[in-house]
Amino acid sequence: MNALSGHAAIAGIGATRFSKDSGVSELHLAVKAVADAIKDAGLSPKDVDGLVTFDIDSSPHTEVANNLGFDRLSFVGVTKYGGGGGCATVQLAAMAVATGVCQAVVCYRAFNERSGHRFGTGEGPPPSPTPGAAEVNWSWTAPHGLVTPAATVALVARRYMHEYGATSEDFGRISVLARAHAATNPKAWFYGRPITLADHQASRMIADPLRLLDCCQESDGGVAILVTSLERARDLEQKPVAIEAAAQGSAKEQQMMTSYYRDRITSQPEVKFVAEQVWKQSGLTHQDIDALVLYDHFTPYVMMQLEDYGFCGAGEGPGLVASGALGLDGQWPLNPHGGQLGEAYIHGFNGIAEGVRQLRGTAANQIKEAKHVLVTSGNGIPTSALVLGQAN
Amino acid sequence: MNALSGHAAIAGIGATRFSKDSGVSELHLAVKAVADAIKDAGLSPKDVDGLVTFDIDSSPHTEVANNLGFDRLSFVGVTKYGGGGGCATVQLAAMAVATGVCQAVVCYRAFNERSGHRFGTGEGPPPSPTPGAAEVNWSWTAPHGLVTPAATVALVARRYMHEYGATSEDFGRISVLARAHAATNPKAWFYGRPITLADHQASRMIADPLRLLDCCQESDGGVAILVTSLERARDLEQKPVAIEAAAQGSAKEQQMMTSYYRDRITSQPEVKFVAEQVWKQSGLTHQDIDALVLYDHFTPYVMMQLEDYGFCGAGEGPGLVASGALGLDGQWPLNPHGGQLGEAYIHGFNGIAEGVRQLRGTAANQIKEAKHVLVTSGNGIPTSALVLGQAN
Repeated sequence: MNALSGHAAIAGIGATRFSKDSGVSELHLAVKAVADAIKDAGLSPKDVDGLVTFDIDSSPHTEVANNLGFDRLSFVGVTKYGGGGGCATVQLAAMAVATGVCQAVVCYRAFNERSGHRFGTGEGPPPSPTPGAAEVNWSWTAPHGLVTPAATVALVARRYMHEYGATSEDFGRISVLARAHAATNPKAWFYGRPITLADHQASRMIADPLRLLDCCQESDGGVAILVTSLERARDLEQKPVAIEAAAQGSAKEQQMMTSYYRDRITSQPEVKFVAEQVWKQSGLTHQDIDALVLYDHFTPYVMMQLEDYGFCGAGEGPGLVASGALGLDGQWPLNPHGGQLGEAYIHGFNGIAEGVRQLRGTAANQIKEAKHVLVTSGNGIPTSALVLGQAN
Repeated sequence: MNALSGHAAIAGIGATRFSKDSGVSELHLAVKAVADAIKDAGLSPKDVDGLVTFDIDSSPHTEVANNLGFDRLSFVGVTKYGGGGGCATVQLAAMAVATGVCQAVVCYRAFNERSGHRFGTGEGPPPSPTPGAAEVNWSWTAPHGLVTPAATVALVARRYMHEYGATSEDFGRISVLARAHAATNPKAWFYGRPITLADHQASRMIADPLRLLDCCQESDGGVAILVTSLERARDLEQKPVAIEAAAQGSAKEQQMMTSYYRDRITSQPEVKFVAEQVWKQSGLTHQDIDALVLYDHFTPYVMMQLEDYGFCGAGEGPGLVASGALGLDGQWPLNPHGGQLGEAYIHGFNGIAEGVRQLRGTAANQIKEAKHVLVTSGNGIPTSALVLGQAN
């Protein structure tokens, strides 16, 4: 345990609707989600003195603050590394609260990732007369076609299949599960639309071996999370959810989605490092976890997280998925909201909100007596995670 | 005081040479500065578990870590808002240390701001099919010519002159002072090259009323700052420098360099807010400060900081500067290293290093018995500051 564990709590969550064409600006989505989280906590904008988002979020703290009539902010934090930094925003907020820098911090992420800029259409740095280290790194992979997130993951997925005899069906079962959960979540884009393994197998190839249904959705929407001290949260509107652990991690030979030069690429040392930290901070083990909210950008990376967080051994992910342990009635229900494959792709922020709902007892697919939830952020990059728990 | 004050210390500083054409990559500069700070502290890369830089720094933590052979990082932080976030990097590092997230964090900033991308050549967002809130804001000012930092400051400077009867000479005295200090600092670009007020007045107009010599330099270089616990710092190579206060702030109607819609623009509420916080955290007042390291991107913004941090009243800056109180033998020596006008423009990081040297007693222009130093970051944007002190 460190000074962070259990000091801070999530007291409010907010969200816009999840769509494929919001029809409004990204700023509008951010402001709406932040306002919603503040209202959920029973607070007003004047009570908030910190904001945290992604460095790539297009809505600066200043604009969100101006639009909501905030007074002064003593913390304007950002995290780097895209979806890997999702849970790290909550870690920053918890650090600000634990050190007295802030009283209440709202973390937010909002974008029109379907109707606006789509990551899957091919990413790359803008042309620059003065390329930096990131651009130089891209230059080794982009010319070979690795310009989409799916393409970078495909190489690892193929290696995973080679090492462990895993099949496309093994990955597909994760999608089937996510869509089953989304089917009974009215907030999910794929509400009422479950799929079969045959649907998965029939879906078109995106980046071999990844099929369309191995890839998360592209979504428009925003989600916000309000963090304050556990003590203060007890006096607010909602049942407080304790931040039992919050950690981030980067490891040797780490690159952005292309850490291919390691001796082994089917296990990610940064994920293992974050796992070590969250278990140590929370004093829990994977056996204590009642629901799993794993970042599901691509099904093979969910499989690897199951192994790297210790829910099964290396190469045992397919067996664990097939066993039914990850269903709503299993030992470790996986993404009960439907995840990013089924609910929406809000860079993992909707997963943090789901963790909170499970612990409040207000989830669409509520897990009985959920006491501890693991929430993770994007892997393949420096990553982060939270263990959230019922406040005693 | 909050949980942050006095828990963390600066145990190492590092820098490259400051030049106009480094001849090496920005990553090279970053790695060199970070390695130098680690060595200065008497540590090795394996001892460092956190890195913090600007979101706009071109050298990601991952690349710096790979080049130096770091093991694992439990914190990969960034700050936003350019030069405004300089001291905020050290605040983040102090927060990480205070909460047990990290043992030792290196903050760094490195760029080829003269031989590579020059901010003064005209800034603006790249063309985007999906402009966000920042781009929309730019659209109100950029078409009118406000595309350089100097242009945005010029409007405020003119208003300051109008309200208080200040003159170009008043601003010029700040440059003369900086260049006098740089003239006796061998690390400064303008070592041995002082100027007179006549030189300032003869320098060409950049953005009326700002002359060339009202504007900081453009520089190539890198600086790094190693933060650890005060307790650990006592066992290391250098005399530890305590982080007595570390704060950031944003305020109502805050914009990026263009907060013109406030009732008054010659005083900046975010600077006053940061001032409030650092005095409260440190338990000190401006009277206790022995040396001032103020962010000197443009001389009028130095003048306004003198007022907003409380070293004199509103409109009294010119008198304070003319009084000699800011000279090396005055009450509050200003930027003894020569500042960004005289030493180098490393986005304020070289100022943090100067604060450390003054408290170690190793500065080129050493202030006698310096016990507390105020270091500030860029204003006109969300800003930040530190109070550094001799560790007892």
